[in-house]
Amino acid sequence: MNFCSHCGQPVQLRDIPGDNIQRYQCVACEMVHYENPKMVVGCLPVYEDKVLLCKRAIEPRSGYWNLPAGYLENAETAEAGAMREVWEEALAKVKIIGIHSIYSIKHINQIYVFYLAELTPSEFGIGEESLDVRLFMESEIPWKEIAFTSSVHALKCYFEDRKTGQRRTHRGEFKMK
Amino acid sequence: MNFCSHCGQPVQLRDIPGDNIQRYQCVACEMVHYENPKMVVGCLPVYEDKVLLCKRAIEPRSGYWNLPAGYLENAETAEAGAMREVWEEALAKVKIIGIHSIYSIKHINQIYVFYLAELTPSEFGIGEESLDVRLFMESEIPWKEIAFTSSVHALKCYFEDRKTGQRRTHRGEFKMK
Repeated sequence: MNFCSHCGQPVQLRDIPGDNIQRYQCVACEMVHYENPKMVVGCLPVYEDKVLLCKRAIEPRSGYWNLPAGYLENAETAEAGAMREVWEEALAKVKIIGIHSIYSIKHINQIYVFYLAELTPSEFGIGEESLDVRLFMESEIPWKEIAFTSSVHALKCYFEDRKTGQRRTHRGEFKMK
Repeated sequence: MNFCSHCGQPVQLRDIPGDNIQRYQCVACEMVHYENPKMVVGCLPVYEDKVLLCKRAIEPRSGYWNLPAGYLENAETAEAGAMREVWEEALAKVKIIGIHSIYSIKHINQIYVFYLAELTPSEFGIGEESLDVRLFMESEIPWKEIAFTSSVHALKCYFEDRKTGQRRTHRGEFKMK
């Protein structure tokens, strides 16, 4: 950040009274510009004993498989954002069952929220951001071709819970490859 | 947003190829400036049969009681942010038990994440952002003096679960008063 988005004059990193983190402040209008993590919302869409994955058509990690997810937009609930991503990537409608996981990837200022969701109906297609979309049984998951660590964690937790008949909520912190 | 924070020239709301939402784009350097919801993280700190609330010393809603919560910062996990807020407002250390709730307040572009947490030890104090901090039994909660709807929802869900001996994860959408 170099300039004030409000008045166009330069900003400086400054101590702000009552705050313990330096912030960018405009040297002219004195507006303080806060920078905060972004939320990535997505679904773990299931149909019978299968999970839906999308093969990414866009960078980063184009050509790799992933759970449908993307940045939450303003004026959107977290659930609506997660369902929108499933629609954009897989042309599928889902019913959200509950919160599956919250993962922090602090080195890139992202927080992932995944919802467990059911495909209703089982129809899906290949959205503009995808090269392919498929339902995978656990034994068919292409573990070495998953795009992001967040999806690996969420899928592993899901299959572990399914074995024990539990539905737990998961959380954690990791670096994203 | 009026000016590009990168180069200081004016921005315009424009259609961006491959995107279905108009974004602010710089007329000179063409940088696209995304605006996304902010995450508010906090704890529902419990000690024996009591819940810790903080009386706000700052606007909005100064003088009203609330669960300790605030904006998540860059380079911070969601849990670390929630624990930091308890420290700043109530000078208390907590151990996080699990995710309690995710609430969307889309008209102000905020997503709340509350963690259920235990006070360890039971000591606490009055942080700089608080006028008072106290442990409340359910019968003592000042329901008409709670600062934000998010805390009302989280507390009601917590006490309902305690009656039935469940530990559920909650989600929802509401307008903030």
